[in-house]
Amino acid sequence: MLKKLADLQAGNDFEFPVLLKQVDVRTARNSKKFLAIVFADDTAELPGKFWDASAQDIKDFVAGKVVLLTGKCELYNGSLQIKIITMKIAEANTYSLNQFIKHAPLSQKQMQEQINELIFQITQPKWNRIVRFLFKKYQQKFFEYPAAKSNHHDYVGGLAYHTLSIANLAQKVCQQYPQVDQSLLLAGTLLHDLGKTIELSGPLNTQYTLEGNLLGHIVIMDGEIVAACQQINIDSNDEEVVLLRHMIIAHHGLNEYGSPKRPQLLEAEILHALDELDATITMITKAEKRVAPGEFTERIFGLDNRRFFVPNALASNNDDIKN
Amino acid sequence: MLKKLADLQAGNDFEFPVLLKQVDVRTARNSKKFLAIVFADDTAELPGKFWDASAQDIKDFVAGKVVLLTGKCELYNGSLQIKIITMKIAEANTYSLNQFIKHAPLSQKQMQEQINELIFQITQPKWNRIVRFLFKKYQQKFFEYPAAKSNHHDYVGGLAYHTLSIANLAQKVCQQYPQVDQSLLLAGTLLHDLGKTIELSGPLNTQYTLEGNLLGHIVIMDGEIVAACQQINIDSNDEEVVLLRHMIIAHHGLNEYGSPKRPQLLEAEILHALDELDATITMITKAEKRVAPGEFTERIFGLDNRRFFVPNALASNNDDIKN
Amino acid sequence: MLKKLADLQAGNDFEFPVLLKQVDVRTARNSKKFLAIVFADDTAELPGKFWDASAQDIKDFVAGKVVLLTGKCELYNGSLQIKIITMKIAEANTYSLNQFIKHAPLSQKQMQEQINELIFQITQPKWNRIVRFLFKKYQQKFFEYPAAKSNHHDYVGGLAYHTLSIANLAQKVCQQYPQVDQSLLLAGTLLHDLGKTIELSGPLNTQYTLEGNLLGHIVIMDGEIVAACQQINIDSNDEEVVLLRHMIIAHHGLNEYGSPKRPQLLEAEILHALDELDATITMITKAEKRVAPGEFTERIFGLDNRRFFVPNALASNNDDIKN
Amino acid sequence: MLKKLADLQAGNDFEFPVLLKQVDVRTARNSKKFLAIVFADDTAELPGKFWDASAQDIKDFVAGKVVLLTGKCELYNGSLQIKIITMKIAEANTYSLNQFIKHAPLSQKQMQEQINELIFQITQPKWNRIVRFLFKKYQQKFFEYPAAKSNHHDYVGGLAYHTLSIANLAQKVCQQYPQVDQSLLLAGTLLHDLGKTIELSGPLNTQYTLEGNLLGHIVIMDGEIVAACQQINIDSNDEEVVLLRHMIIAHHGLNEYGSPKRPQLLEAEILHALDELDATITMITKAEKRVAPGEFTERIFGLDNRRFFVPNALASNNDDIKN
Amino acid sequence: MLKKLADLQAGNDFEFPVLLKQVDVRTARNSKKFLAIVFADDTAELPGKFWDASAQDIKDFVAGKVVLLTGKCELYNGSLQIKIITMKIAEANTYSLNQFIKHAPLSQKQMQEQINELIFQITQPKWNRIVRFLFKKYQQKFFEYPAAKSNHHDYVGGLAYHTLSIANLAQKVCQQYPQVDQSLLLAGTLLHDLGKTIELSGPLNTQYTLEGNLLGHIVIMDGEIVAACQQINIDSNDEEVVLLRHMIIAHHGLNEYGSPKRPQLLEAEILHALDELDATITMITKAEKRVAPGEFTERIFGLDNRRFFVPNALASNNDDIKN
Amino acid sequence: MLKKLADLQAGNDFEFPVLLKQVDVRTARNSKKFLAIVFADDTAELPGKFWDASAQDIKDFVAGKVVLLTGKCELYNGSLQIKIITMKIAEANTYSLNQFIKHAPLSQKQMQEQINELIFQITQPKWNRIVRFLFKKYQQKFFEYPAAKSNHHDYVGGLAYHTLSIANLAQKVCQQYPQVDQSLLLAGTLLHDLGKTIELSGPLNTQYTLEGNLLGHIVIMDGEIVAACQQINIDSNDEEVVLLRHMIIAHHGLNEYGSPKRPQLLEAEILHALDELDATITMITKAEKRVAPGEFTERIFGLDNRRFFVPNALASNNDDIKN
Repeated sequence: MLKKLADLQAGNDFEFPVLLKQVDVRTARNSKKFLAIVFADDTAELPGKFWDASAQDIKDFVAGKVVLLTGKCELYNGSLQIKIITMKIAEANTYSLNQFIKHAPLSQKQMQEQINELIFQITQPKWNRIVRFLFKKYQQKFFEYPAAKSNHHDYVGGLAYHTLSIANLAQKVCQQYPQVDQSLLLAGTLLHDLGKTIELSGPLNTQYTLEGNLLGHIVIMDGEIVAACQQINIDSNDEEVVLLRHMIIAHHGLNEYGSPKRPQLLEAEILHALDELDATITMITKAEKRVAPGEFTERIFGLDNRRFFVPNALASNNDDIKN
Repeated sequence: MLKKLADLQAGNDFEFPVLLKQVDVRTARNSKKFLAIVFADDTAELPGKFWDASAQDIKDFVAGKVVLLTGKCELYNGSLQIKIITMKIAEANTYSLNQFIKHAPLSQKQMQEQINELIFQITQPKWNRIVRFLFKKYQQKFFEYPAAKSNHHDYVGGLAYHTLSIANLAQKVCQQYPQVDQSLLLAGTLLHDLGKTIELSGPLNTQYTLEGNLLGHIVIMDGEIVAACQQINIDSNDEEVVLLRHMIIAHHGLNEYGSPKRPQLLEAEILHALDELDATITMITKAEKRVAPGEFTERIFGLDNRRFFVPNALASNNDDIKN
Repeated sequence: MLKKLADLQAGNDFEFPVLLKQVDVRTARNSKKFLAIVFADDTAELPGKFWDASAQDIKDFVAGKVVLLTGKCELYNGSLQIKIITMKIAEANTYSLNQFIKHAPLSQKQMQEQINELIFQITQPKWNRIVRFLFKKYQQKFFEYPAAKSNHHDYVGGLAYHTLSIANLAQKVCQQYPQVDQSLLLAGTLLHDLGKTIELSGPLNTQYTLEGNLLGHIVIMDGEIVAACQQINIDSNDEEVVLLRHMIIAHHGLNEYGSPKRPQLLEAEILHALDELDATITMITKAEKRVAPGEFTERIFGLDNRRFFVPNALASNNDDIKN
Repeated sequence: MLKKLADLQAGNDFEFPVLLKQVDVRTARNSKKFLAIVFADDTAELPGKFWDASAQDIKDFVAGKVVLLTGKCELYNGSLQIKIITMKIAEANTYSLNQFIKHAPLSQKQMQEQINELIFQITQPKWNRIVRFLFKKYQQKFFEYPAAKSNHHDYVGGLAYHTLSIANLAQKVCQQYPQVDQSLLLAGTLLHDLGKTIELSGPLNTQYTLEGNLLGHIVIMDGEIVAACQQINIDSNDEEVVLLRHMIIAHHGLNEYGSPKRPQLLEAEILHALDELDATITMITKAEKRVAPGEFTERIFGLDNRRFFVPNALASNNDDIKN
Repeated sequence: MLKKLADLQAGNDFEFPVLLKQVDVRTARNSKKFLAIVFADDTAELPGKFWDASAQDIKDFVAGKVVLLTGKCELYNGSLQIKIITMKIAEANTYSLNQFIKHAPLSQKQMQEQINELIFQITQPKWNRIVRFLFKKYQQKFFEYPAAKSNHHDYVGGLAYHTLSIANLAQKVCQQYPQVDQSLLLAGTLLHDLGKTIELSGPLNTQYTLEGNLLGHIVIMDGEIVAACQQINIDSNDEEVVLLRHMIIAHHGLNEYGSPKRPQLLEAEILHALDELDATITMITKAEKRVAPGEFTERIFGLDNRRFFVPNALASNNDDIKN
Repeated sequence: MLKKLADLQAGNDFEFPVLLKQVDVRTARNSKKFLAIVFADDTAELPGKFWDASAQDIKDFVAGKVVLLTGKCELYNGSLQIKIITMKIAEANTYSLNQFIKHAPLSQKQMQEQINELIFQITQPKWNRIVRFLFKKYQQKFFEYPAAKSNHHDYVGGLAYHTLSIANLAQKVCQQYPQVDQSLLLAGTLLHDLGKTIELSGPLNTQYTLEGNLLGHIVIMDGEIVAACQQINIDSNDEEVVLLRHMIIAHHGLNEYGSPKRPQLLEAEILHALDELDATITMITKAEKRVAPGEFTERIFGLDNRRFFVPNALASNNDDIKN
């Protein structure tokens, strides 16, 4: 029996609950309203149109609601879509929102423990206090937000998972190159994308906020460090604070990518490289999972529109990979 | 009688007081120390070497001191330089430092009045309070600092003078284009380079500070606005504050020039254009004053190494231009 | 009662005169001809299709005609369009073409007076004679042509209005920076885009001419200056003429934008900056008028595809702005 | 016996006539004047300094004079230079200037005949008349000027020789690709660099003129075509003339290299390619003649600072190559 | 009577044999399969759709088959397309595939003779042996493959024809510039694109192979030279072989275009220039044949999206040109 | 007692054995020969000049010899140099060359063992055999050569040490991201720079060879893989071999850096990133060791001329770092 969106093929009839991930109200040629919807669960996303929407429909069917959907899966222009037969709002408490959305491979609790362990390794007192203060302030969102609107780690907990991946790599680099300051590298790693909790609107229907558009997460987080210093009585122009602020503002590596200064610290250069490495591996892996061995992926926007080849020779390696 | 550096020609003997603008201690081939000095007064700058410097000389002759200098002006490799005959520290109180350094064409008092008048025209209350708070905090340095290490407005009061020039242009643009918000444009103009009071070390022997190198005046000033908001109880994420912060961070226009975001407000685009226009006119004028009509200037680094032609036809226009 | 295109909403029936601004003859899938029309008046432009066009229809309904149109306004793919019910050519003399096309905010007479005043301020005799000669030759077109095919000042009189806006800014710059030669700057300003009267086909249905495509308005105007000099007996290699020609050929600022030489005169650099400033303000304002406060504009092609934000905070400033 | 500059090696004493190709008057550290001279004959160029120059010396020893020079050849910083022992102006009429300067491999008479033959092949009447008119006007300079200040074809007659080389290639291309219009390609070829007779000062001590700096040879020649048309009663906006003007203004291929329009005619694209090909071959050959087989040349500025390898395998091919 | 695709106009009914050049199996909205076909003969290509394709149809109608097609020519969205009425596979042996595909203007025999003549002119023994070995190995494909997937010389024999065109130009350049080594230039010319026989899948339905995508024809041919040397006992690190390998790897001219080294030999620079020149002329000519005199071509992707103008003045030149 | 070059300060007299690392024969202004020498031991390098060199001196004092040097250390233009008093060739067998040159932090034996262990982990049979074959062929040079002429790992064994550093990082990445194929990543890592044993001349007096200049180590190693396949009977166009060849040719990441193809395999992208990361960390560390805490390094050419800051705060971390 078909229970999830990922099970559907062209021609299938089905009935099961799904999430309204995105809902746009539009006007048809006949001047009536319709809803352009993205349905989602934790396995896939599919589009569909709800025609002749009444004022009540528009009020009821908003993004974030779970609906019990009866429909048919169809192929159109080479892509699957949903033909809606009936659709009604699920009773409150029947389903948890969490069942319908994609999550990080680790639980929030697991990630929380790893973060705590990492903060413990920041032995420089000022950096430790600043990181602790800001994680306390934004911790709720940190474990829920995605790391990006799309591209990579675009799921609940993606921000935390991406941060942890970089921190793991960072620890290995510190082992191999003892000249690297682990406190600084970890403090920078933990804070580098935390501003995304202000830059983005949240894990569902993710949009850029006004601060996100006009300031960006780099400037936002720098401001948050300044504000934190005022509250815990650290001078934000101390050399140690300036070093940490530089870690944040330089982490995009190039001015063209939005860093007002390019890295001028060994640790800042490494943070930039590891950030890019984790994002790159994740983007390629995500794209490769959509195609079969022996094929090229779609062009990946975030990697200069390159396509990547999934070798037949390595087919067995791609089983059971998490995101 | 020769009284100023600008009077000297190759072969002249002279005796008058000058400022030690820059002093580097170096070791000669014979392993003795010598001082590589830049002498300056308000008319010109000339280099000279003080050989066989004793430990006492090194202690006495530091940048910022005024000396009574007896010397001869010589031509070397096509440039004038000073051959030092005798040199002694001027009595304290004999000369004011101000006599020996280049100043803005307006007095500090004149500039202060104009700034006050401009702040008065910022009618939006939050912007007015933020600007007022920050000018009170940095006003001393604002009227003393240069606008740049070299290139343009590199003299005492240059920062204030450059800011006023842009503000004058801004007012004219507001008259011609009523859709421009004058409060926002003036608030952004007044604050846009104020971070240079932290980025640079001061009006003499100007160097980049650590904050200047690792953060830059754009990020510094954004942090100062955040800190100011905390102190005067304004939420730094209010739309009005976000707009003002965007004015600062976007004023270099391009990511490549250090702006983490490109202008996304009409007023931000205008501030960038006027900043560039005033700097450009000033750089060209400074270079043109060094050559005769009918000649091309030296290549101007800040203008893509272009050379500019001083027409014979316009020779009379270049008399008596200030800065 | 509905009288203008800007009044129409989806579902409205209407009958009023409009201009055929653009008419393309095409063949439908059934092999019959149809007309793809852009209707216009001085308030808006809307597209519509005239099906099954006879040979006579094709001959009658050409761009530039005014028709009495009976139709219905419909929404299609999110845009309004006209469903034509009946359409007939308006009697000659019933309507003036001028009623149906967008004009500069100033009348031709007002602009003519301002231009005369500006020419009067060009006190250098050769420049004055050349400018006077060329304005006499092209004055008719100068006051009718747009300043560009689209982007900015794309209306009747746009070329003159754009030229005057720059000239106004230029006068203010000359007041603030006395080292600028006002004669040269104004002469260059008045001529800089005059070549567009040859580069473009005219104010309606604007296209690039062959000269426009293969030579461009920069080279065209340089040739016109050479030809003018021959007719009024000035040597086109005189320094003064070379300066003026340089003003024209350098006004795009960068080789990449079609200037064969980058600016090498202070006045040429300023002309380039003011040209860009006026075009930029105009493009942003035009885009902002299409969206509500709190929204971002569409991407603006001429500004590197940037979007601009219309602040809620400044909403009251955008009332009653011209062009 | 040593008779030419190319014969000299470090340590040689010599006495023979040479040309003063370049003479700069400078002031030595001891405040006396000296002359920095470039001596030349048709085999080589070598620098030397004439110390303690009197006012009479400065007046006598100017660029363009032939002197009887007694001197010694020395090695300094890895380069040969002349130590002047005595030097006196050669009697007028003793030597012809031509003996001392480098010339094109063909005589002016040979080149004149080839040019005439090429003009004869321009069968389109307007292009033929324009080319004929302009060659009559500038023919004297055309056969004397170099094709560039340095880089390539920087000798007497270089402009004509470069033009003929391209024209030869052009004829071969027309044979192989009959779709190419030979009249247009040859007319464009003959005129494309003719503006250098105004852009440059002449074959000796070559400098850019004011027109050269502010307009450039591309714009200069376009203006000359316009002026020519006026004098021979051709409308400079005829399609044929516009095509020819486009050939000139597009021949640098890229906006970045000073063409206000990129090629939009097959013939314009070919002219650009052949111009580049001839210049490239000539630059590489010139550089390769300065090094031995098995070595790399110096970096060639005009070819993106690339170095080229002279293979041992091909050593025999490089004998007796002209220019 | 209509016999070829190029004869068809909108509304024509026809029946004649054509080639299935490309066939894609897709699923329609009604979940049935259909075939998206490109029909071709040696005069033109036209698209059409075969609806409701059975499993047998899918098996029968594959690319490379000749079918007897009854259909109607229709205009859709401004382009001609085929409405299929009946379609059946042509009897084997009824038609030769060659009748339906575009060929080089020369026969394979003619091209073979010219290639033999060229190899004869490679007088350096190692280069001669390597070229002979590789042409023997790949000669079959060399005379059948296109020179590119699309863009230029995209027909049977295009690779050989493009190679010969360059070789002809190369011989002319060697005549004009005797310093060029003809053996090296011809050996490099003959081999430069030979790797395309491995990079591409063949003359019909041309695709990139895995080697083509991951290595490219430049690296492929370098490897082939190394392998050839092993088989005919030449050391692949001999200077002569290194020169030849450099000719191949540098022929794209710029790193950005896939050459791992830029040209460092005179002959390598020339090969790059002539390769580009022949491709450019061919692309422009191909585009110009699709439009009438007085019009601009479509934008040409391979030439930076430029459009080219077909002058009225030159209309008579474009008759009877071979591709 | 002073025993090593690193001990010397300006003014010191000394006598100890050193290596002649580089010797250039030049001619002085007095026409006599002299030797420009770089002296080296395993602690430092210093320049000196040997004047009036006889033919015998030139024959004796060649690069690679150890000499017993009596001299004085002097400061000149801010840099230390050696004034040679006496210098004589050390007896053969008195000193081992190894004493005087910088080595990798690991012994050759240690590195050999690690390499063997890594090859053991390449479980794919074809890759294992190819790697084994090529390491057997080039192993001697692999453990002696530097990884670059200068920049980073420019010492004996640098190539092997750099390769091992990347391989260590690669193993960690494989642990963290199980979707990465470790065999392919390690095989590519081990071979990626092996071509430098042909591109460079050796560990002392390192120069580019002709193959290095005209082909580069990327193309060289691709050719070596092809040749190896022929010798061990593997088809070089097998998918597995194509994958490995792609790892080599794509490892510079960008066409601009000499890769004829950009990475199209996950493993190729990772190899590129880790190669860059190790080189970057090494370059920064090398530069930081030359300056004191609180200072910026010199500009690093290989990192876009950026300078890096050595924080006071982290001073204790930089003790005892290897290479």
